[in-house]
Amino acid sequence: MSVLITGSIALDSVKTQLEEHHDMLGGSASYAGVAAGFFTDVNLVGIVGSDFPKPFIALYQKHRLNLDGLEIADGKTFRWSGEYEWDMNKRRTLSVALNVFEKFRPTLPEHYRNTPYVFLANIAPQLQLHVLEQMQRPRFVVADTMDLWIEIAREPLMALLKKIDCFVLNESEARELTKQTNLIKAGRLALTWGPKYVIIKKGEHGSLLFADKFIFSAPAYPLEDLHDPTGAGDCFAGGFTGYLASVDRVDADTLRNAVIYGSVIASYNVESFSLGRLQTLTPRDIAQRYGVFRAISQFIAG
Amino acid sequence: MSVLITGSIALDSVKTQLEEHHDMLGGSASYAGVAAGFFTDVNLVGIVGSDFPKPFIALYQKHRLNLDGLEIADGKTFRWSGEYEWDMNKRRTLSVALNVFEKFRPTLPEHYRNTPYVFLANIAPQLQLHVLEQMQRPRFVVADTMDLWIEIAREPLMALLKKIDCFVLNESEARELTKQTNLIKAGRLALTWGPKYVIIKKGEHGSLLFADKFIFSAPAYPLEDLHDPTGAGDCFAGGFTGYLASVDRVDADTLRNAVIYGSVIASYNVESFSLGRLQTLTPRDIAQRYGVFRAISQFIAG
Repeated sequence: MSVLITGSIALDSVKTQLEEHHDMLGGSASYAGVAAGFFTDVNLVGIVGSDFPKPFIALYQKHRLNLDGLEIADGKTFRWSGEYEWDMNKRRTLSVALNVFEKFRPTLPEHYRNTPYVFLANIAPQLQLHVLEQMQRPRFVVADTMDLWIEIAREPLMALLKKIDCFVLNESEARELTKQTNLIKAGRLALTWGPKYVIIKKGEHGSLLFADKFIFSAPAYPLEDLHDPTGAGDCFAGGFTGYLASVDRVDADTLRNAVIYGSVIASYNVESFSLGRLQTLTPRDIAQRYGVFRAISQFIAG
Repeated sequence: MSVLITGSIALDSVKTQLEEHHDMLGGSASYAGVAAGFFTDVNLVGIVGSDFPKPFIALYQKHRLNLDGLEIADGKTFRWSGEYEWDMNKRRTLSVALNVFEKFRPTLPEHYRNTPYVFLANIAPQLQLHVLEQMQRPRFVVADTMDLWIEIAREPLMALLKKIDCFVLNESEARELTKQTNLIKAGRLALTWGPKYVIIKKGEHGSLLFADKFIFSAPAYPLEDLHDPTGAGDCFAGGFTGYLASVDRVDADTLRNAVIYGSVIASYNVESFSLGRLQTLTPRDIAQRYGVFRAISQFIAG
């Protein structure tokens, strides 16, 4: 089955304490789309400006992204720049220029509307709702968010939660949204707001998947050399949804595997800037690291 | 096989944002000893004052602690008081009175010296070394520490590391000791300093066991109601060592299980103040929660 993905498309400039790169391919939909493309066909919904580099279009196509829903508007592509501190957990946004993104109000191509799996990557919840409303009874809808929307668009975000199957957010967002310091309480509380599943991403500590009847605690890949954490969460959720779509099942065992596959893609992505590492990623690489996830977390009853 | 445990014995006063309790049984050796006692016989080495309450002696005995190595000295028992903030991850020490602990320089009873498993719970590394030097070729030695010794007794701590099999420390201690923000780097670096195994405790994020050839990432028990985190790390390491001693094996599978059993005991301990919850803990409770640890972390290749 295929997956529809919407979110931001950006030209990113990222500075770490060791390196600096400008106008790289970025945005939540870019990361999530390419990640999902390792598992299934992706219907991309997004907007770029007329300055969007052609090689990035080719990159999307190479990664199984259908671009019928990609609007190329007059003007400049959305730009974001940020800087990471030494420990890579703290990020500071240096500048944001919405540009054509300001007029993003997508109308989905007719043949997109019955895509069975949907991932609403991080954009304003009003836009996530706008896209979702054009879909014809999707089987499984996943949505991500960010601190900004929790702060300035809480009402549409809460409305969105009632319409999705799985909500993905990170540790600090979970605490901010639920006003619970305990992550187990936070996850369980978010479950009561609509979604059947909640995933809390914890970066170097892995992730937690909450359902009514179970919790799954996934480890993090033991990574020593992290070069650019940008897009890790998008890759996680894109890989997660793409895997679910590829097997077209959403039972507990499949969801657990989807969390691991999402973690695998994210773990590779942070090894280089932008989508650099994913360009050369192979099915064999994915299988190899899936094996590592098993090896580091499974134990035999003794 | 039995395990020898040394460390502090204290009368603790603990304040959380909801409750406050005074002169409770505490200290690293109390927590670790009682935790290990769920799996095997424990030879306790410690010191208390003449004011040490008789019921605590009875409590030790009920939990399989041999007290031939417990010195009852003239004077007052070591006292510690601390306060937790709302999120329970931040603790502030309010007062410390070493009292008889200041003259602690244990001479081990003859029949203690060939105990095959040893856990050196948190005390000054000079004292941990002093105890270890009296042991006759133990099979497996585990040691814990704290930030204070990393800061003021780094040299004896590094000397200790060369003589032990497994070093247990928490996340912030690991970062402080190794000066690495990345925990994988921190764990692997600590391995090069002597111990065959390093365990980094991450509280609500579980723990990481490092060996030359593998890493094991253990989840945390999904706990919603944490009442008093005091002693969790001691219970973890005591349960870990006690389990190893009980099966008398230290292969990779057994070590993984020991990490889980240590986590089980710690997860119960934080449910009430002092050793309250462990007083009523049954083998059935332990098996039940071991099952939860499996359920939340295991996945079937899909």
